Amino acid sequence: MSDKQSPSELSRRQALTLPLAAAAVGLLAPSLAKAAADDPLPSWNDSRSKTAILDFVGRVTKEGGSDFVPVEDRIAVFDNDGTLWSEQPAYFQFFFALARVKQLYPEHPEWENQQPFAAAISGDMKTLAESGEKGMATIVMATHAGMTTAEFAQLVVDWATTAKHPRFNRLFIDLVYQPMLDTLALLRQNGFKTYIVSGGGIEFMRPWTEKVYGIPPEQVVGSSIVTKFEMKDGKPVLMRLPKIDFIDDGPGKPVGINQFIGRRPIFAAGNSDGDLEMLQWVTGGQGPRFGMLVHHTDEKREWAYDRQSKVGRLDKALDAAVAAKWTVVDMKWDWAKIYPFGG
Amino acid sequence: MSDKQSPSELSRRQALTLPLAAAAVGLLAPSLAKAAADDPLPSWNDSRSKTAILDFVGRVTKEGGSDFVPVEDRIAVFDNDGTLWSEQPAYFQFFFALARVKQLYPEHPEWENQQPFAAAISGDMKTLAESGEKGMATIVMATHAGMTTAEFAQLVVDWATTAKHPRFNRLFIDLVYQPMLDTLALLRQNGFKTYIVSGGGIEFMRPWTEKVYGIPPEQVVGSSIVTKFEMKDGKPVLMRLPKIDFIDDGPGKPVGINQFIGRRPIFAAGNSDGDLEMLQWVTGGQGPRFGMLVHHTDEKREWAYDRQSKVGRLDKALDAAVAAKWTVVDMKWDWAKIYPFGG
Repeated sequence: MSDKQSPSELSRRQALTLPLAAAAVGLLAPSLAKAAADDPLPSWNDSRSKTAILDFVGRVTKEGGSDFVPVEDRIAVFDNDGTLWSEQPAYFQFFFALARVKQLYPEHPEWENQQPFAAAISGDMKTLAESGEKGMATIVMATHAGMTTAEFAQLVVDWATTAKHPRFNRLFIDLVYQPMLDTLALLRQNGFKTYIVSGGGIEFMRPWTEKVYGIPPEQVVGSSIVTKFEMKDGKPVLMRLPKIDFIDDGPGKPVGINQFIGRRPIFAAGNSDGDLEMLQWVTGGQGPRFGMLVHHTDEKREWAYDRQSKVGRLDKALDAAVAAKWTVVDMKWDWAKIYPFGG
Repeated sequence: MSDKQSPSELSRRQALTLPLAAAAVGLLAPSLAKAAADDPLPSWNDSRSKTAILDFVGRVTKEGGSDFVPVEDRIAVFDNDGTLWSEQPAYFQFFFALARVKQLYPEHPEWENQQPFAAAISGDMKTLAESGEKGMATIVMATHAGMTTAEFAQLVVDWATTAKHPRFNRLFIDLVYQPMLDTLALLRQNGFKTYIVSGGGIEFMRPWTEKVYGIPPEQVVGSSIVTKFEMKDGKPVLMRLPKIDFIDDGPGKPVGINQFIGRRPIFAAGNSDGDLEMLQWVTGGQGPRFGMLVHHTDEKREWAYDRQSKVGRLDKALDAAVAAKWTVVDMKWDWAKIYPFGG
């Protein structure tokens, strides 16, 4: 997507050309090569954002230092949509729901004349958008409930391993941000427990987050519908009911963090107004704290949007970031690489 | 409490007397001494229960064996009241609530003429019991809500480090079962992640479970009231509201396990009918599974109760245990020691 050279590409080229240079200049070149190999954030350009992350990790892990944080309190929380993977032109879970509507349509011929289903089937995105939150909820309930948790997990796996994003013609789970994968890895190498805290469905994420992000199911917090224990043909199952249980967004995020984790994290990353309260909660505690906002500024390699966007609107949180001194990541300038496959 | 000799007491005596014996019989005695020192469940008498636990742990950790379970799936869940600590003559959280009523009484003179508060203040347990679940809920809401999560945690810590059980005149948190502490340690040594899944309040347990059981806050699942994010004097807080959020008991336990952990555990321990569905859910999965019921049979060292008890009733689950081949632990015979301080 871009002709910018990423540090990891750079280091690969260096690996090829440096042996000669090393022979020529003595010790300098090998130490440069070592620095590139040792870079814990190779997909980040050298920038204030990168320095801020490395500085924070250095301070909280320095034993005897005034900002040292014991391992058990090194908790980091990450929003998912727009923070760990893309969220345009619509939340990816919405594509999953639309695919489910089309799958289920043969069993529901009445949907032909029922909105918002008719719009979903015909791909009439304008009508679908006009159906608003109520329309979305109707579609989610019809497509995400009425089955066991195990059956739903299988549907998610089937979709995640086959469905492709319309712009990139890649699996949706390929559209994760390499610099954030670097950040997750850096934090974990330094004793952090990394969590997802997302407005997305908790059971929509858990089947693939371990493989994609290295985040196990028990470290995923998200929105949920009600489940009910039942014996079905003599076997215990959990049935998914068409009823909202918890919305893990906005002021719900600190609530979800407290409910699931029971500790106050010291590091939070988000990208939208839905992450404002999470960032306030995390950075409002005592001791060293890190708040990060991913600002989508790169329409060439990804998308550019903020205050006016319907998906992932970043307005109030952007203002708050200045006052609170959160690190605002400028995707275009701070990220050498967007996706693992390039970009 | 008992004149039975625990294996750990035994091993201490052996350590004193065995050197002479070892000199007399050669290699036999040192190998016996080593066996005692290596016993991973020293507070358990040699019994079918102990053998069953050791056999299960051996099978699931044997690489290449047909019952091998990868580390990430080694999840064990434990009920708390009556399984990890005592629950008589009433749930310990109830003592906490009564202490809170007495603390708050000066601010609520109207309670003098209001039930169930009047009964709580005067210690009229009969009237209190007659107020039933509704009465209990009234007391919990009046004593557990209307403050921040941080303020509540401090109240719990203050209580846990000072309040004493009427029968033993010991801190309530001292009345934990040494054989279960041994079991938790054994499982963790073998790669298990140990969780509490309790009907008790999640925020009532989290302030002390790490210190007492080695179980961190993020591995505690319990009942909860609603919390709400607010800015208070410019600081973010979570306010506890007088409204039930989730009851983690009976059929709620598999729901809570799925919600918080997102994996199906392979080991579950409980002691009452409130644990029935959890045991069904855990042992109903494929592959090796372990279900344990702690049967309270020792009125001398602890309490003896089951089918008729108002607290921790064990009736349906006891019948189910036979059919499902869960391990029913007989406290009197299987446990060499009850509490860390003896008993």
